[in-house]
Amino acid sequence: MKYREMTAEQRKVEFEKVSAEFEAWKAKGLKLNMARGRPGKEQLDLVSGILSVMTDPTDCVDGDVNVRNYGQLSGLPSAKALFAEILGCKPEQVFVGGNASLQLMYDTIAKAYTNGLLHSEKPWCREEHIKWLCPAPGYDRHFKVTESFGFELITIPMTETGPNMDLVEQLVKDPAVKGMWNVPKYSNPDGIIYSDETIERIAKLKPAAPDFLLMWDNAYCIHEFEGEFVPFPDILSLCEKYGNADMVFEFASTSKITLPGAGVACFACSEANMEYMEKLINIQIISYDKINQLRHVKYLKDKAHTLELMKKHAAIMGPKFKAVTETLAREVGPLGLATWHDPKGGYFVSVNTLPGLAKRTLALCKEAGVIMTSAGATFPYGVDPKDSNIRVAPSLPPVEELQQAMEVFCCCLKLAALEQLK
Amino acid sequence: MKYREMTAEQRKVEFEKVSAEFEAWKAKGLKLNMARGRPGKEQLDLVSGILSVMTDPTDCVDGDVNVRNYGQLSGLPSAKALFAEILGCKPEQVFVGGNASLQLMYDTIAKAYTNGLLHSEKPWCREEHIKWLCPAPGYDRHFKVTESFGFELITIPMTETGPNMDLVEQLVKDPAVKGMWNVPKYSNPDGIIYSDETIERIAKLKPAAPDFLLMWDNAYCIHEFEGEFVPFPDILSLCEKYGNADMVFEFASTSKITLPGAGVACFACSEANMEYMEKLINIQIISYDKINQLRHVKYLKDKAHTLELMKKHAAIMGPKFKAVTETLAREVGPLGLATWHDPKGGYFVSVNTLPGLAKRTLALCKEAGVIMTSAGATFPYGVDPKDSNIRVAPSLPPVEELQQAMEVFCCCLKLAALEQLK
Repeated sequence: MKYREMTAEQRKVEFEKVSAEFEAWKAKGLKLNMARGRPGKEQLDLVSGILSVMTDPTDCVDGDVNVRNYGQLSGLPSAKALFAEILGCKPEQVFVGGNASLQLMYDTIAKAYTNGLLHSEKPWCREEHIKWLCPAPGYDRHFKVTESFGFELITIPMTETGPNMDLVEQLVKDPAVKGMWNVPKYSNPDGIIYSDETIERIAKLKPAAPDFLLMWDNAYCIHEFEGEFVPFPDILSLCEKYGNADMVFEFASTSKITLPGAGVACFACSEANMEYMEKLINIQIISYDKINQLRHVKYLKDKAHTLELMKKHAAIMGPKFKAVTETLAREVGPLGLATWHDPKGGYFVSVNTLPGLAKRTLALCKEAGVIMTSAGATFPYGVDPKDSNIRVAPSLPPVEELQQAMEVFCCCLKLAALEQLK
Repeated sequence: MKYREMTAEQRKVEFEKVSAEFEAWKAKGLKLNMARGRPGKEQLDLVSGILSVMTDPTDCVDGDVNVRNYGQLSGLPSAKALFAEILGCKPEQVFVGGNASLQLMYDTIAKAYTNGLLHSEKPWCREEHIKWLCPAPGYDRHFKVTESFGFELITIPMTETGPNMDLVEQLVKDPAVKGMWNVPKYSNPDGIIYSDETIERIAKLKPAAPDFLLMWDNAYCIHEFEGEFVPFPDILSLCEKYGNADMVFEFASTSKITLPGAGVACFACSEANMEYMEKLINIQIISYDKINQLRHVKYLKDKAHTLELMKKHAAIMGPKFKAVTETLAREVGPLGLATWHDPKGGYFVSVNTLPGLAKRTLALCKEAGVIMTSAGATFPYGVDPKDSNIRVAPSLPPVEELQQAMEVFCCCLKLAALEQLK
């Protein structure tokens, strides 16, 4: 029976029951963390082979490039080829960088700010005011990057097929709107795959700003944890088709394929953008870690072999997501307290509680020793207008702990709802 | 006999002789590169052990930090300790980053530009005009970083004891002067060690700008190739002593200790600066490659062990520098065409030709298949007012090739001088 349909007396009984449960959880002194999308230990162990794939100087050659010395700013040819095959673009459109796609994203926007992009009239720091489109719920670190440069963040509601495109098409008519964040496949946190129609509408946008920057963070492009690999369109050629070749920068990394923090990241863009960016990046760095790039090429080999590895990750991740969604379905589904997505890939389950419950639920979780991503984090400026969205990150804890953590979470959500209805 | 003291007839004979030599070199079709300070193959082979120092997941633990996952933005405790011991500062003053100190330097100035530093009144992009002190001859990549942000570069002449401090002390009274480049030990390219007095005067500067930024690139802090390790003062505690704790950022890396491009870089600064910078860097990246940090800690162990490795580098580098300075002394010394420094560490020999000969000498070298750092590169905006300074980078070629390259260089310098005197 839904809480709202209960009588006051029924709710009082339920409140006492749930309160007792909550106290029992607290007494256990748990310490569980579901705050971030960190791979779990089993996943790390899965890729231990990468540590020993290059142990001899004779391994350190890639075609005619000696990877042990300076040089090759835009990355090793073999690493470009690997990412190009995965992303479906051309190797010459790929820049392979360091260990973090976030840094490449930040740097792209920073270059726009300090120097301007290829089609900028001036560096963005010389603009009066910059607006930025933020599909939300979205990734807090994306929002913080654009916030740190003083841009005004505009929330674009997410739908089942991606961002609300009617609104996007309307807003890009404003020349102050300079760009947009996107996680097109298994969006963070909703786990939504942008529909082909949405992607097509994005590729054919006609922004008033000549230097509109489409940030295409393909962080989960091969990260299915259930079912077969789902192909995705190449955003670069789509944008080119509609005369927007220089509008998009796509990002990816192996952070959730090999080792988080010790992986390899890349961006992909038009060849004109590549030429422009290489000149700017050449001022910042001589070259990225090519040893680690080659280590990854030797270990991952090609797309097919990488997808085989992703199946092994899926075998670890799948049961964790099942534990989350099944516990939600059992514990809070019948009570009408929340809805959630049931993704087939990515790293998150996005839960939407009844309005006004998210903060209180997570505060209670914290009391009971379960740390989750802060309420509000999935919205620009960390403010969820409905105080409803909660990002659950099930990857780190082992299944047994996760099961416990989700039971705690459901208990806290119930308690928050009952408190609200008092 | 010096060329200037020759009769016209003697010079004519000499010109014909040197021209014939030049043609003979050209006919050999050499392809030699002394453009950049790249370690040579022997040096790379020296450190092959680093490739196999971490091959098992059980190696991937540093105290209670699992280095295989995200986190630990400012670097592994063990890596901080290693750099702190080498630099003579405190571990908590060290931020260990990615593979490139240039990137950390660029990012520090970029943060000043986009957000401002700890004591800035506003981000530097909101300042009317920024001036920057550039001891010259100096490092071209330093100059390009500050040029890329539109700062006005002011040349500070180098003396035998470091930059001309009378001039520096005068110029920092201008609040538009926001910072200064330094390579305090084995300066690039002169190979000068700043004297204790110079360093003291720098540490006690009283700049008008509250956010004056002393960039202290200690790139060659343990890079002796002749004689024993030369201790250097800790710039952080010196600045602190004179009330300038937050004025300095020091940089170092293992690029020329282990593998260039696959090393580990760091910066060191006051704890107040560290707190400020961590907040800003946290927006840009979750964490740097801790696997590679730990790989370095396991391989280099501590300062004493690292200095032992540097002795092995010295055994390779020393003979190369000898080949350069001996050839210069034999071929051009008696002719009065150039002077040069005779460094005991670092990566360069800085040659000063008679005025107006540098560009022509290097153009002739190029014709004969020897590539050197472009003339002018060691000065702001790539313009050497005397067209005199040439940076010789002897590390990459094997000694035999280097010997040849230097003979070509001396031949070209003679030819350029004789052409000028015609």
